Amino acid sequence: MAHNTVVSWTEGMAFDVELDGHHFIVDADEQFGGRNKGPQPKGLLLSSLAGCTGMDVVSLLGKMKVPFDRFKLEIEGKLADDHPKCYTDILIRYIFHGAELDRGKIEKAVGLSVDKYCAVHYMLSKAANLRHEIVLNPD
Amino acid sequence: MAHNTVVSWTEGMAFDVELDGHHFIVDADEQFGGRNKGPQPKGLLLSSLAGCTGMDVVSLLGKMKVPFDRFKLEIEGKLADDHPKCYTDILIRYIFHGAELDRGKIEKAVGLSVDKYCAVHYMLSKAANLRHEIVLNPD
Repeated sequence: MAHNTVVSWTEGMAFDVELDGHHFIVDADEQFGGRNKGPQPKGLLLSSLAGCTGMDVVSLLGKMKVPFDRFKLEIEGKLADDHPKCYTDILIRYIFHGAELDRGKIEKAVGLSVDKYCAVHYMLSKAANLRHEIVLNPD
Repeated sequence: MAHNTVVSWTEGMAFDVELDGHHFIVDADEQFGGRNKGPQPKGLLLSSLAGCTGMDVVSLLGKMKVPFDRFKLEIEGKLADDHPKCYTDILIRYIFHGAELDRGKIEKAVGLSVDKYCAVHYMLSKAANLRHEIVLNPD
């Protein structure tokens, strides 16, 4: 099985991204000659990671019958100073809100994703240090 | 320096992605409980790669004064059969159209991106085999 993307230059530093039949724009920041018409491409690595492990966790918590009201992931990627300016450290925060959150089952679901199922986590962990935290009902 | 993304569950398998102040939706395919409201997250790795190296090449060709009419990147990522279903092989095609394309300079620009500047290429090459081709004025 294979995935495909087609990314077409439009003007300046902006490109049209086609993926799974959907389109969006990526662009550079103004200090790098772009016009900020869309997100910068490097950060998509972090969004890819969040979406991939987030879907694992939603699926696993559904099977475990763990209810939650809200769920979001905040990811911070620290960059190296020198070229290629890779992410050296990536912190994933899994943040849940709900009245009946079960920390043990949530930890199990997150663990299964990061240790077994999430291909993006696996790939990025070959190049950067990945850590995660689980936060329940923050203010 | 650091990058941040916030990815918030909306319903089903769909998440709202916030990156650099822009928003888009990621979703799963219908066979995995999604409704295909946006691209799937894993493929964003490929789009990230295309955008990152594409911007390098546009910037370098501008400095080299190499004109082109159109430029797109097609990327194919082959997936492993077993969990975690990573990309094992990634092929990047740099496709240019123009009357005055200079293959030598284009090869130099692409080479500088993949060997030196493109952080996404560097990171993914730790986990998969990456290859590239340059295609000038295809039919």
